[in-house]
Amino acid sequence: MKMKTIDDANKAVIDKIVGAAPFLVDVVPAHTVIPELEEKALLHAGPPIAYQDMTGPMQGSCVGAVLFEGWAEDEAEARSMLEGGKITFIPCHHVKAVGPMGGITSGHMPVFVVQNRSEGNEAYCIMNEGIGKVLRFGAYSEEVINRLTWMKDVLGPTLSRALQSTKDGLNLNVMIAKAITMGDEFHQRNIAASLVFLKEISPYIASLDMDKQDMQSVIKFLADTDQFFLNIMMAASKAVMDGARMMEAGTVVTAMCRNGKDFGIRISGMGDQWFSAPVNTPQGLFFTGYSQEDANPDIGDSAITETFGVGGMAMIAAPGVTRFVGAGGFQDALATSNEMVEISIDQNPNFTVPTWDFRGICLGIDARKVVETGITPVINTGIAHKEPGVGQIGAGTVRPPVECFEKALEAYAAKLGLV
Amino acid sequence: MKMKTIDDANKAVIDKIVGAAPFLVDVVPAHTVIPELEEKALLHAGPPIAYQDMTGPMQGSCVGAVLFEGWAEDEAEARSMLEGGKITFIPCHHVKAVGPMGGITSGHMPVFVVQNRSEGNEAYCIMNEGIGKVLRFGAYSEEVINRLTWMKDVLGPTLSRALQSTKDGLNLNVMIAKAITMGDEFHQRNIAASLVFLKEISPYIASLDMDKQDMQSVIKFLADTDQFFLNIMMAASKAVMDGARMMEAGTVVTAMCRNGKDFGIRISGMGDQWFSAPVNTPQGLFFTGYSQEDANPDIGDSAITETFGVGGMAMIAAPGVTRFVGAGGFQDALATSNEMVEISIDQNPNFTVPTWDFRGICLGIDARKVVETGITPVINTGIAHKEPGVGQIGAGTVRPPVECFEKALEAYAAKLGLV
Repeated sequence: MKMKTIDDANKAVIDKIVGAAPFLVDVVPAHTVIPELEEKALLHAGPPIAYQDMTGPMQGSCVGAVLFEGWAEDEAEARSMLEGGKITFIPCHHVKAVGPMGGITSGHMPVFVVQNRSEGNEAYCIMNEGIGKVLRFGAYSEEVINRLTWMKDVLGPTLSRALQSTKDGLNLNVMIAKAITMGDEFHQRNIAASLVFLKEISPYIASLDMDKQDMQSVIKFLADTDQFFLNIMMAASKAVMDGARMMEAGTVVTAMCRNGKDFGIRISGMGDQWFSAPVNTPQGLFFTGYSQEDANPDIGDSAITETFGVGGMAMIAAPGVTRFVGAGGFQDALATSNEMVEISIDQNPNFTVPTWDFRGICLGIDARKVVETGITPVINTGIAHKEPGVGQIGAGTVRPPVECFEKALEAYAAKLGLV
Repeated sequence: MKMKTIDDANKAVIDKIVGAAPFLVDVVPAHTVIPELEEKALLHAGPPIAYQDMTGPMQGSCVGAVLFEGWAEDEAEARSMLEGGKITFIPCHHVKAVGPMGGITSGHMPVFVVQNRSEGNEAYCIMNEGIGKVLRFGAYSEEVINRLTWMKDVLGPTLSRALQSTKDGLNLNVMIAKAITMGDEFHQRNIAASLVFLKEISPYIASLDMDKQDMQSVIKFLADTDQFFLNIMMAASKAVMDGARMMEAGTVVTAMCRNGKDFGIRISGMGDQWFSAPVNTPQGLFFTGYSQEDANPDIGDSAITETFGVGGMAMIAAPGVTRFVGAGGFQDALATSNEMVEISIDQNPNFTVPTWDFRGICLGIDARKVVETGITPVINTGIAHKEPGVGQIGAGTVRPPVECFEKALEAYAAKLGLV
């Protein structure tokens, strides 16, 4: 009887996932939609964490954000502010946001605004900076700050104007469905989706009355940034999963995120509560000169994509990325996605995968199935150097600790009066 | 002994295919690179054919080209010129060109210029007009002529300037390798390659000093035209195969093309000679309101893509297109490509297919293997209405008649003194 109730609740949650209608409608300075960022505050990835407990790259990102906001003159002053408790820290997830890797978000960084029109909720995510030395991996050199400033002054306002001239925003379901047919899994591979975004937005950009040099720099940046869509996908996944968890019942995993120390999950029946356990460290392939021992432990909110059913869950959609994350060939990709079906409630008919004989992506990770089978979700992830300032050193896969799912189920059982 | 010699010759031919280096370097009016088009002449697809033997859509394309060039005031005058023998007809293939469907090419149409830098040869192809009422499918209304005029006056010159500002041209091997990982087979599906082209060219277009309205119309046309890369791929395939057939020996198929009446092939050992037999009619899926009985027999030079190893030969690369051409699901795509391996000499390591566990595309169709096995190449193709002026009515697959390959082998055996 109780099991029936949970199944019914889960069905209601996944129906909201299937029915979701995420639209990219604007790019705005973060503080305009997240009032907490009007103060000296920073958002970070993962469940709550204090500055002194953060790993190197997340601390490096904090330094970069303080310099970007002009709160400090140099690194020494920035570190002193951060260590002295002058900055408030808030998990992205607590303010309708998600952030990649360190996830460090400050008030004047532009964020994507994704509306989920089926439920009327919104979600936010900062924009992708490209590869190499970038803030999200803990780099904070002048090059990094200059790029962030250009994104604030040129890229963000240009995309905002272009999106406004679309009138209705961009229908992300359509773009995701197109790109999955082109071999993206939307976590480590967004090359097709980023091109679909370029295709949709470039005619609007070309129509804007704006500085010619700026237009050229924006189009070139979008054309060159293969992972640009990742952050849009993260905001879309957050908007969809936040819409679905308005249904406060059931055992559907509604968020997975990591702060470099703890892995946190949420399930639909337990609302905003986090269930955490120490993170693992990703295994994968490293850029020349780096190895496993340089790897930072698992970090970032980007596992919201796996929560939605893509990323490592949809490995078979992206055989082209399987090798990049060190996960083998086509048959290994197939085996991974088939394994993920075992912990999912259903498959999403909106996003069919040609390489999976047109089966839908995984729909609704059931915490009960994870605990019963011992199979944890596979997450495709970038790998940061454990020291601040270095940046990305590889890509691989990682799994959450099963304890998160066990704790969530225990709490839900207690809430239901089952224990 | 003789077999050994043919194998050696074939090996030399496929080495030239693997070593080819096609670059897109310019877009120019056809007559500037094809002097035959300075006169009142038209190029057509397939082996040689007279106007009165052409099927409806090819005749319709001729009417459109005559109107576009301003040689006649109206359709009646155009038909009278064409029927009266006032126009010279030349197969595209005879002047280093290829043309889709009707393949009708006139002097003032802009053509892509692809250089094969390994052999120093060039190939040309007109630009893709998009879908709906288009000249290549036999439509010749005012809308069609106006679009061709815009392509001549705006699109062509803009792409020419953008390509010139790249200095070195665009390296097509790189773009093809990227797009095959994104599920294109380059005959009926070029959605990823067209986006890769947009990504490469749009920053250069945005840098041009040009009319703002024109810039916007060019970027919008490129963003909207999912098959834009097909014609680039055709020119690239022609450049590669023409480079390879400078090796005048062996049984490698170096061209396959159709004029709506005859299917013609060339093999490496027989140079420019055509071996022809009556075409089949494509089988496939039809747009609403049309059926198999409306289908024109097989037409167009686009099977040069299959000759290079993509299109139907690489069905497994594009499970997303398999359904579109009515060829079933993933397993059917796999079976098709596996069958095509049986008539190929090797697999091309430059273009690996993730969905085929990273095996290379088919390399070198061996006419001997076709005749021995009775397996003919699978061609993915658009389907034209058999009446002029209607346009595309569907997409499907078709195979060449085996007689072409038998005739080619007989002729080569005779040349070698084997019979």
